[in-house]
Amino acid sequence: MPERAIGVFDSGIGGLTVLKEILRFLPGEELLYLGDTARVPYGTKSPATVLRYAHEAAAFLVGRQVKMLVVACNTASSVAIPELEERFNLPVIGVIEPGARKAVSLTKGGKVGVIGTEGTIRSGAYTRAIRALDPAIEVFAAPCPLFVPLVEEGWSDHQVAHLVAREYLEPLKARGIDTLVLGCTHYPLLKATLHQVLGDKVQLIDSAEETAHLVARMLGEKETFRGSRPGWPRYFVTDDPARFEKIGGAFVGSLLKNVELVALEN
Amino acid sequence: MPERAIGVFDSGIGGLTVLKEILRFLPGEELLYLGDTARVPYGTKSPATVLRYAHEAAAFLVGRQVKMLVVACNTASSVAIPELEERFNLPVIGVIEPGARKAVSLTKGGKVGVIGTEGTIRSGAYTRAIRALDPAIEVFAAPCPLFVPLVEEGWSDHQVAHLVAREYLEPLKARGIDTLVLGCTHYPLLKATLHQVLGDKVQLIDSAEETAHLVARMLGEKETFRGSRPGWPRYFVTDDPARFEKIGGAFVGSLLKNVELVALEN
Repeated sequence: MPERAIGVFDSGIGGLTVLKEILRFLPGEELLYLGDTARVPYGTKSPATVLRYAHEAAAFLVGRQVKMLVVACNTASSVAIPELEERFNLPVIGVIEPGARKAVSLTKGGKVGVIGTEGTIRSGAYTRAIRALDPAIEVFAAPCPLFVPLVEEGWSDHQVAHLVAREYLEPLKARGIDTLVLGCTHYPLLKATLHQVLGDKVQLIDSAEETAHLVARMLGEKETFRGSRPGWPRYFVTDDPARFEKIGGAFVGSLLKNVELVALEN
Repeated sequence: MPERAIGVFDSGIGGLTVLKEILRFLPGEELLYLGDTARVPYGTKSPATVLRYAHEAAAFLVGRQVKMLVVACNTASSVAIPELEERFNLPVIGVIEPGARKAVSLTKGGKVGVIGTEGTIRSGAYTRAIRALDPAIEVFAAPCPLFVPLVEEGWSDHQVAHLVAREYLEPLKARGIDTLVLGCTHYPLLKATLHQVLGDKVQLIDSAEETAHLVARMLGEKETFRGSRPGWPRYFVTDDPARFEKIGGAFVGSLLKNVELVALEN
């Protein structure tokens, strides 16, 4: 069992920020990554459809004998975690809970901002998770649908990104937040821009990093760390491996290898 | 046969600009519209995947006895028209050929710009179609991946849209184009912004309008105009009818009714 891989899935490329952090904290683990690039994005789709896609993605990885599932997609995490745990009977870690927990531990003024896709924000999952930990915290959530396309266009530091960030974040800033949860796996690439717009007084929480911590803790508790030296991560996508390799490099910080085309539907 | 409906499909909402023009030119026709909102967008996906999705969408409409298929999606038109004609044995009209034909008839300087999604531009379909009609014309093509999310965000006239348009179009302007094909069904909503950026000397070609002309001409040739008064168009989507109704209204210019959730995959 410890020798088995950790399975990570996302609607597409964004989850690679989570994979990168897991690789950094747990360099001894074998990793399988599935990006559902034929149906990306999930963030504009309905909960029922996202749940169906998440089931299919999880089934694919479970079929490859993973020891743990990481849902490296905020939208899927916001609707699918309990169902996946029940159906597949193995540890399932999403990105919402770790980000929410960190926000609660960091905020001093009790005012937390959350940004994400339409689907993530509409689900209210971050607000629920934060307030379950501390009902006194005020949560201000804002969907930022243009951030993902901006990152995928390679414009994270472009003047346009600044202008869009100002537009989306001004209302949160006006509420006096001191902590902002980056509730979408693409957003860590916008950190520099978000920091410039929000200033030094607002701390940015990267769910990817917090999720990797939780993965490490869970493996420790279950004593399922791998011992031997792993191979490269293996990547599976449902469409266009070439595009995934090209854009994905910026997310992981190195060239991607072993990207394989697979089918999920039916 | 004349009483049968015209079937229109798109990856999502954008094709409603084509539907709107068909409604305007042919108010006597019955219309079925299918938006594959569970898998939108097609513009970032591979030709093989887009072809598969187009087949499934066409099969759905053919199953409802349409007399003609309109592929109201540039990306799908760029890869699927010949295959759909062959497989379903009925008239299939895409949006590329009508737009290309109009560009050839309008350009005076022989320099035509084409903008579209990554998939449409990468396919080279507009360039081929224009140069097949007049090999002397120079075609300058540019993908504009941020335009669709900007339109869907409702920011068509926002300062951000201007800045993005300047960034994308400056190179085409520098080449001296006098005609620009809007090679994506979302782009007509950006006409005012594009016009401001490009100035009076560049004519904008709306493929939606040209496609509606061609549909009318084809029906005339085949004498398959409907006679009786039609009902409201019927809309089918593969995900989230509520979002389709909400955003789609801006495309058609009136409230959408009769939006039904259907499944294509299996």
